[in-house]
Amino acid sequence: MDLVTVDDVRAAAGDLTGVVLRTPLLPCRWDDQLWLKPESLQPVGSFKLRGATHAVARLDPARRARGVVTHSSGNHGQALAYAARAQGVSCTVVIPEGAPAAKIDQVRALGAEVRMVAPADRLPAAEAVAAEQGRTLIPPFDDRRIIAGQGTIGLEVLADLPEVDVLLVPVGGGGLASGIATAVRALRPSAKVIGVEPALAADAAESLRTGELRKWEPARAYRTSADGLRTHLSALTFAHLRARLDGIVTVSEEEIAAATTRLVRDARLVVEPSGAVATAARMFHAAELPAGRTVAVVSGGNVDPAVLVAAAGRPDPA
Amino acid sequence: MDLVTVDDVRAAAGDLTGVVLRTPLLPCRWDDQLWLKPESLQPVGSFKLRGATHAVARLDPARRARGVVTHSSGNHGQALAYAARAQGVSCTVVIPEGAPAAKIDQVRALGAEVRMVAPADRLPAAEAVAAEQGRTLIPPFDDRRIIAGQGTIGLEVLADLPEVDVLLVPVGGGGLASGIATAVRALRPSAKVIGVEPALAADAAESLRTGELRKWEPARAYRTSADGLRTHLSALTFAHLRARLDGIVTVSEEEIAAATTRLVRDARLVVEPSGAVATAARMFHAAELPAGRTVAVVSGGNVDPAVLVAAAGRPDPA
Repeated sequence: MDLVTVDDVRAAAGDLTGVVLRTPLLPCRWDDQLWLKPESLQPVGSFKLRGATHAVARLDPARRARGVVTHSSGNHGQALAYAARAQGVSCTVVIPEGAPAAKIDQVRALGAEVRMVAPADRLPAAEAVAAEQGRTLIPPFDDRRIIAGQGTIGLEVLADLPEVDVLLVPVGGGGLASGIATAVRALRPSAKVIGVEPALAADAAESLRTGELRKWEPARAYRTSADGLRTHLSALTFAHLRARLDGIVTVSEEEIAAATTRLVRDARLVVEPSGAVATAARMFHAAELPAGRTVAVVSGGNVDPAVLVAAAGRPDPA
Repeated sequence: MDLVTVDDVRAAAGDLTGVVLRTPLLPCRWDDQLWLKPESLQPVGSFKLRGATHAVARLDPARRARGVVTHSSGNHGQALAYAARAQGVSCTVVIPEGAPAAKIDQVRALGAEVRMVAPADRLPAAEAVAAEQGRTLIPPFDDRRIIAGQGTIGLEVLADLPEVDVLLVPVGGGGLASGIATAVRALRPSAKVIGVEPALAADAAESLRTGELRKWEPARAYRTSADGLRTHLSALTFAHLRARLDGIVTVSEEEIAAATTRLVRDARLVVEPSGAVATAARMFHAAELPAGRTVAVVSGGNVDPAVLVAAAGRPDPA
């Protein structure tokens, strides 16, 4: 399979200016070998804006005029709506019935057309919109341009901390880890890129261990609080991770909760559970990780207020 | 009175690398003419690290060897402890008895020596330490180097948003506003720098209106939740604000609370009440402010967990 290259990632970086925030690296008071890459600060609250912005930027004029479509009630839907609006492109987001009203409102507020469908009809409905209206379907991770866009995080980390030894990256669909590993493997081969998954949605760890793409049943993966990481890999992201990821670790729900509290209280970042897994790996699984200067990607901050209240009120983990 | 110059601010900027975070400007989803300068992301959670770092960096070798001292249970104490440690300088922080144990622990964790004294003895105790041990007293705002250091925020805003029209800056002791106004007045005279105070601690507004330095009784100023803004101006900061500030507005406690919720929920920033006043001014007093591209300085994020829980759980202000 033809993998994304570091030149693809560099090309994506050129498309981000003016839409995507160049996030800083934050040193940590509680760990002088740890830095945070706070993608929670992106205008839509997650790294998904990177891939979406690049994908929209590279539409040819005819496709650009007809607009884009995706199916997502989560961070990718918001990201695509924002990226499309910023670039003057029309956007439809197919949202499964039952999604929180607040999320639907946020997508609408970004100027996207919302189409509600039964959850099982998400993908066919998006494909139907694409076919009928000539819109380009922009998937959340199973796409070379999305992978290249997410990989720009790797370029920024290497620019800000050239001597980085370890990057800890959440793994859901695998687009983020595929992109970052692509950039880092090419530009600093001595650094290790380690994926992090919830133990309750460890399909990527199982896939990499067995050498076969494993897809957990939704009912199984949905047990984790890290709602952004319940997805399984695609053939494309699996191929990237097999070739370029240096390892993968899993974290428990208790560890995710403790890391969320630590990030809120001591890094002053509002994060969602999926955004806390990399920090949890460093806090609780350092013995399983390579040593050295470590960057944890804080992938997003779109958290349910009740979860945030719980994290803010919990005693700080020792 | 001899005021700080933009060259002083530029000199300070050169001292910050490697200690102070170069914070980004964050666009706001809810207001496309507003950007946030999140100083809450500094490693000690506030802008105070800027002035403290510059002040320590400019000690001559003899003073450097003898160390620094200050009196503060708040953000300046932590900032000086951090700045001193980062530059290999010994630090003592005089803390009034009754300060929260967590804050005392944080100062100690930064390697500073803590000296507990009765609240009324703070300043004399710090002066005594300075006299006995030859330590240099670094005050929280009444100091030209501190003002110059805080002014580096103005340089960064102008670099990131050269066409800025309005900067909204919290006013407590006035060091932050003095520094920012110094930089902006010199480099972009068309932009307006507006101070923001809690109505319950509006001594600077009263001073500027009457042309006389007014000092409110602590019991009066301490009614505001914005604990970083209870201080009154010094002669030095008053002189800067009279000469260089373009106006000052006040915000209510309810407005501060609503802005805190907005920042937590929609900008994914953990902020303290003092850090939310500039955003509150834009949200609730836009009619009193100049129009145009506006930057609100989010000055700090060291918030009591109970206040954060309340902010996170409150319904988002419309």
